[in-house]
Amino acid sequence: MPQTYFTPGPAELYPTFYKHLQTAMDEQIGSISHRSQRFRDLYKFADEQLRTLLTIPATHGIFFTGSASEVWERMLLNCVEFESFHLVNGSFSQKFYDYANALHKHALVFEKPFGEGFDAAEIQVPEYAEVVCLAHNETSSGVQMKTSEIHKLKRKYPKKLFCVDMVSSAPYPDLDFSIIDSAFFSVQKAFGMPAGLGVWIASEACLTKAERLQKNDSLTIGAHHTLPTLWKHYKTFETPATPNVLFIYLLGKIAEDFNRIGIDTIRKQTEEKAKMIYKFIDNSDAFEAFVKQERHRSQTVVVATTQKPSAEVIAGAKAANMVVGSGYGKFKESQIRIANFPATSADQVAALLEQLTN
Amino acid sequence: MPQTYFTPGPAELYPTFYKHLQTAMDEQIGSISHRSQRFRDLYKFADEQLRTLLTIPATHGIFFTGSASEVWERMLLNCVEFESFHLVNGSFSQKFYDYANALHKHALVFEKPFGEGFDAAEIQVPEYAEVVCLAHNETSSGVQMKTSEIHKLKRKYPKKLFCVDMVSSAPYPDLDFSIIDSAFFSVQKAFGMPAGLGVWIASEACLTKAERLQKNDSLTIGAHHTLPTLWKHYKTFETPATPNVLFIYLLGKIAEDFNRIGIDTIRKQTEEKAKMIYKFIDNSDAFEAFVKQERHRSQTVVVATTQKPSAEVIAGAKAANMVVGSGYGKFKESQIRIANFPATSADQVAALLEQLTN
Repeated sequence: MPQTYFTPGPAELYPTFYKHLQTAMDEQIGSISHRSQRFRDLYKFADEQLRTLLTIPATHGIFFTGSASEVWERMLLNCVEFESFHLVNGSFSQKFYDYANALHKHALVFEKPFGEGFDAAEIQVPEYAEVVCLAHNETSSGVQMKTSEIHKLKRKYPKKLFCVDMVSSAPYPDLDFSIIDSAFFSVQKAFGMPAGLGVWIASEACLTKAERLQKNDSLTIGAHHTLPTLWKHYKTFETPATPNVLFIYLLGKIAEDFNRIGIDTIRKQTEEKAKMIYKFIDNSDAFEAFVKQERHRSQTVVVATTQKPSAEVIAGAKAANMVVGSGYGKFKESQIRIANFPATSADQVAALLEQLTN
Repeated sequence: MPQTYFTPGPAELYPTFYKHLQTAMDEQIGSISHRSQRFRDLYKFADEQLRTLLTIPATHGIFFTGSASEVWERMLLNCVEFESFHLVNGSFSQKFYDYANALHKHALVFEKPFGEGFDAAEIQVPEYAEVVCLAHNETSSGVQMKTSEIHKLKRKYPKKLFCVDMVSSAPYPDLDFSIIDSAFFSVQKAFGMPAGLGVWIASEACLTKAERLQKNDSLTIGAHHTLPTLWKHYKTFETPATPNVLFIYLLGKIAEDFNRIGIDTIRKQTEEKAKMIYKFIDNSDAFEAFVKQERHRSQTVVVATTQKPSAEVIAGAKAANMVVGSGYGKFKESQIRIANFPATSADQVAALLEQLTN
């Protein structure tokens, strides 16, 4: 009996995924050369569809990596000479910060407790920070930072490069790429695909920085997937190394499906489903919303503290063929996480909430 | 009309691939958590099957990356403090060397012209080289280094770490992992899968080196996919970041299929098919084997210089629904490359040779 996955990634596959996979197999996409016109066409197609979906201007390139975690490293290697600044309020924003330390960058941090969010007004970006690293959506705690706040902060510090982790929210956030320099996501969240592909959006300003750092003998921007190499190949819709051709094809197709529905509709549906879930939680004695401030509540990953041990709640849903995520880290046994991605319909969400009532 | 791909990667998918993919979809492998028992079981399964197939001892871990190219960087970051040594005789061994330079390692090289191979007796490994980087099979030129020669060289320099690129030959080479420290491959070659997964085999000696370098403040071993982090998670068959779960599942299944046939049979079949191809080329006026020394001729990627422009040969095969690769780089128009992987049978090879006769 198939399960419906409400887990925050890997997650439920988007309903059209299977059809596109079948087409890919019929067209032998798994065997085509990554140096062929067929590949260049499908990279270009994915690029165009993502550009339309997320309103990405011509100043920004779209690149593919093995995962979003890889992008943390690439961004720091390519765009930080000395100092990065991190907004940390959960496990994934923490990992971005940890990566900076592992790379011996001077990493500065403004930290909030797990479950709390950031507003622009309270943030002072340190004078020498080159890149501001922040998560639009912190997957571990279900906290979002509103895009309006991200934009406000960038306008206050226009010379800093801003890199936004939208791993578990894209395409939901309406980031303004006329001011945001870089963002990234992975496909196993809201795009409803299996894991195995990271997507990195980066501006010409990031490239310029990387090219400058590459000339500096006292540091390295890495060897694999450096921004100058990615960009050079991107000009002809190629990649420096053999990429996950099949998943790039599938991502293009799913982005096209999203564009057919329209990004405004997808965002509205996401908000409507999130409203259903939070309303249910707020009215339930068995659950409590973990994130107190409404403006910081994630629209795509809802975290609830459970009255019962979370394992019982999860087992109850499982028995009804629905899979919800456990809490993250030390909240594993006291919280559940419900993904609210395009792959699950309002009806499916309603069925889950009905089940959680029992 | 489906094509048969004789390209050296991406290549023809292994015949059982489609069945395994269907099972994976039925079992919703694309949605399972990489922190679940189901995932740990499938990593363990792939690990066991690869261990059996390639005779990998318990001293070595098996790790997954985004690609084999990523492994070049990981190996150099994790295991080279100052100096690496490279045997270069084609574009991919050259790239391994280029990566070392990009990472500001002191990279030393022993170079041979494109199309020529290495024997142990002629190689002097420099005194301070920490890692010897060599390709069992140079995909660009169709040159192999016999495993007996690789082993001879390692025995001459037992204290050096040896890292073998077997990207376009595994599982063919019978590497002796009781003396070889590290090797790597990607799945879109002889394993007959779509691209998107690299496999890195590394020994405890590599881990010890990485742990030592990690304590050294004057360098970084990177942040993503460091050997200590990979190994720590590997102990419970997990990964530091979300991996390509679906492809790890599929790789385990295909390795199991290979084990059912038996590695000796697969190696014998590979050699028999290679013999057919080289015999045809040697007897043909239209083709000439690019690699003159028989002992250096690759068993898995056969490169032939064409009498006609290679584009005509490729177009002729294409018209008969068979895809052969063009020459690499500057040999694009004067050579063809024929992959000899397990996915194509002796009958299919015979059909190709029949077509090339015309």
